Amino acid sequence: MDAVNHQFQLAARPVGLPKPSDWHYAEVPVAEPGEGEVLVKVQYISLDPAMRGWMNDGRSYIAPVGIGDVMRSFSAGEVIASNDPDVAVGEHVGGLLGVQEYAVAHGKGVFKVDTKLAPLPVYLGTLGMPGVTAYFGLLDIGKPEQGNTVVVSGAAGAVGGLVGQIAKLKGCRVVGIAGGPQKCSDVVAQLGFDAVIDYKGEDLDAALTEHCPDGIDIYFDNVGGEILDAALAHLARHARVVICGAISQYNSTTAIKGPANYLSLLVNHASMTGFVMSDYLDRYGEAVTEMAGWLASGQLISREDIAEGLENFPDTLLRLFKGENIGKLVLKI
Amino acid sequence: MDAVNHQFQLAARPVGLPKPSDWHYAEVPVAEPGEGEVLVKVQYISLDPAMRGWMNDGRSYIAPVGIGDVMRSFSAGEVIASNDPDVAVGEHVGGLLGVQEYAVAHGKGVFKVDTKLAPLPVYLGTLGMPGVTAYFGLLDIGKPEQGNTVVVSGAAGAVGGLVGQIAKLKGCRVVGIAGGPQKCSDVVAQLGFDAVIDYKGEDLDAALTEHCPDGIDIYFDNVGGEILDAALAHLARHARVVICGAISQYNSTTAIKGPANYLSLLVNHASMTGFVMSDYLDRYGEAVTEMAGWLASGQLISREDIAEGLENFPDTLLRLFKGENIGKLVLKI
Repeated sequence: MDAVNHQFQLAARPVGLPKPSDWHYAEVPVAEPGEGEVLVKVQYISLDPAMRGWMNDGRSYIAPVGIGDVMRSFSAGEVIASNDPDVAVGEHVGGLLGVQEYAVAHGKGVFKVDTKLAPLPVYLGTLGMPGVTAYFGLLDIGKPEQGNTVVVSGAAGAVGGLVGQIAKLKGCRVVGIAGGPQKCSDVVAQLGFDAVIDYKGEDLDAALTEHCPDGIDIYFDNVGGEILDAALAHLARHARVVICGAISQYNSTTAIKGPANYLSLLVNHASMTGFVMSDYLDRYGEAVTEMAGWLASGQLISREDIAEGLENFPDTLLRLFKGENIGKLVLKI
Repeated sequence: MDAVNHQFQLAARPVGLPKPSDWHYAEVPVAEPGEGEVLVKVQYISLDPAMRGWMNDGRSYIAPVGIGDVMRSFSAGEVIASNDPDVAVGEHVGGLLGVQEYAVAHGKGVFKVDTKLAPLPVYLGTLGMPGVTAYFGLLDIGKPEQGNTVVVSGAAGAVGGLVGQIAKLKGCRVVGIAGGPQKCSDVVAQLGFDAVIDYKGEDLDAALTEHCPDGIDIYFDNVGGEILDAALAHLARHARVVICGAISQYNSTTAIKGPANYLSLLVNHASMTGFVMSDYLDRYGEAVTEMAGWLASGQLISREDIAEGLENFPDTLLRLFKGENIGKLVLKI
C-alpha cells in the first residue's frame, strides 16, 4: 500500500491554549496492519476537553501523549484491510485511533459500530465516550432520585446536554448552566431542561437561589472554577457533586483555582466524587444499549456539531475551549 | 434556690481568633428547672473546634449562638434537682449544657453517663462527640479495608488520635500529621501510629511520598488548607477523603483557601465527603458501646488534656486553635 497518511503529531507541550507551533502536521506512509491488526480509514474524529489533559506531562489516569506521537483521539471509520478474522473489511469501528486519516489498530482494541442503528458521529458522542460518561457519572455517582434538583454546567456541551436529558428521564428537575443566549435557549427548547442560567449574563449566585430554592441535590460539574464554587454554596443536605471535568482550568497558566466553598460539603454532609469513564469500560455496553433505546424511542436527542477537514483540527479543538460548540464536536475527514 | 451561676455569654461575633471583648462573663441566678427539666451542676466543659463555627452568623448545620446567649458547649455534670421522673438527683449526665456552672435542661435532652465505667471527661471525648465523630467518620465515610494506607491530620487531637487508633484496629497502616516534636513522638509512642509527619518541621510533600509510596487510600482531614492540598496530591485510586474539619481556616479573616489539587479526585476516581456527627445521633449508642469495649480491653487509649477554672475558658479555647492540646481538651469547673 503506497497511500499517504496525514496526521497531527504533538510537537510541544502547550502552555495555556494550544498554539499552532504545538502541532506538527505530518505526511507519512500508510502503515501495513500486522498480525491481528486492522487498517481503518478514519471518517470522524472526536474533539474532547480531555485531550488538553493528555497533552500535559505528569501523572494522570492515562499516560500523556509523547512528543512526536500522533495526537490521541477517539475516532471512527471503516475497516479497509484486516488481519483479524473477527473484523471484516467494510465494517465500521471506533476507538483510540488518533488524529489522522488512516490508523492501524489491534482488532481487539476497536469496537464495532452499526451505522444502520445510528450515524457514525453518534458513536463518538451519545453512544461513545461522552454518552457513557454522562450515563455513569449521573446514575452511578450522582444517584438521582425522583424530584431531585440537578444542576449541570457545560449544559450545551456533549456530556452536559446528555446528563440533563437523562436526569429528566429519571424524574428530576434540571437546571443547566451555559454561556450565551443561543446555547441557553437551546438547552431549554431543544433538550427540555426546566431552566437555564447564562453564566455570562446573569449573577450566578442569585440565579441559583431563584432556580434552586431547596438547594442542589446533584451538581454535575464539567467546568470547575467559579461556577463550581457558586454551586457548592447552594448544596442541599446529602448533595452529590460529580466532578467530571474542569474545562475552565485546563488551559490555565496560573495555579488551579480550588473550590473555596468546599466546606459546604461538611455542613451539608455532601460528597464530591471524581469520575473518569475509563473506570467503566467493562460496563460500556450497558450504557450504550440503554441509550440507543432512548434514542430510538425519541426520549433522548443526540446532537453533533460537525466541522470538516483534518487540516482544521487545531482550530476546531480551540472552539471547545472557547465554548463555541453546541453538542458533540466532531471533525469529518 | 439562691445560688449564683457564672457563665460565658457571646458578646460579639469574632473576627479571626476570639478576643476577650467577644465574651461577657456574667453572673446570673441559678434557674429553677421547670416541668420535665433537670438542673445540672456542670463539672466538665468540652472545648471543640466546632465552637468557632457556632460563633459565626450564617447558614450551617446548626443555628449560630445568639449574641447575649450563653456559649454553646458539650458539658457534663451531676443532676442536683430533677422534675423528670426518669432522671434522678445524683446521676451524671452530658449534653449541650453550655459554658456555665449550672444548666437547666430538658430531661430528654441530656444523656446519662456511667462514671463507674469511665471518668466523666471521657464522656466528652472518646465516648462523646469526638469519639463518635472519629468512629463514624472513619468507618462509615472512609470505609477502611485491611492494608489500606490511612493518613490523619490533627493526629494528636481528640478526633485524629482516635481515628488513627481505630484504623489500626481495622488493620490499616496509619500515618499521622501533627505539629511539633512532642506531639509527633507521642502519636507514634502512645497511640501506636506507624509513622508521623511533623508539618512544622518537614516538607509535607516529600514526607507523604516517603510514607505513602502507594498513595493514600483514606485521608481524614481535620485541618484543611495546605495540608489538605498536599494530601490530595497523593491520593491512590478510589481514595476516600473525609472532611471532618478545617481548623486552619476557622479563624481566617481572608477567603477560605480551597483545595487547588481537587482535580486529583477526578484522575483517581476518588471522593471527598463532608461529615458532621449530628447526622449519626440515632446511632450514637452503637459507637459508644463498641468504643467502651475497646477502652475496657485496652485496645484504645483515651487521652484528656484537662484545664481548670471556668474563668479560664477564653484562654483555654485559644489553646485549641494554637494547637497546644494533646488529646481531648476539657475544662474542669
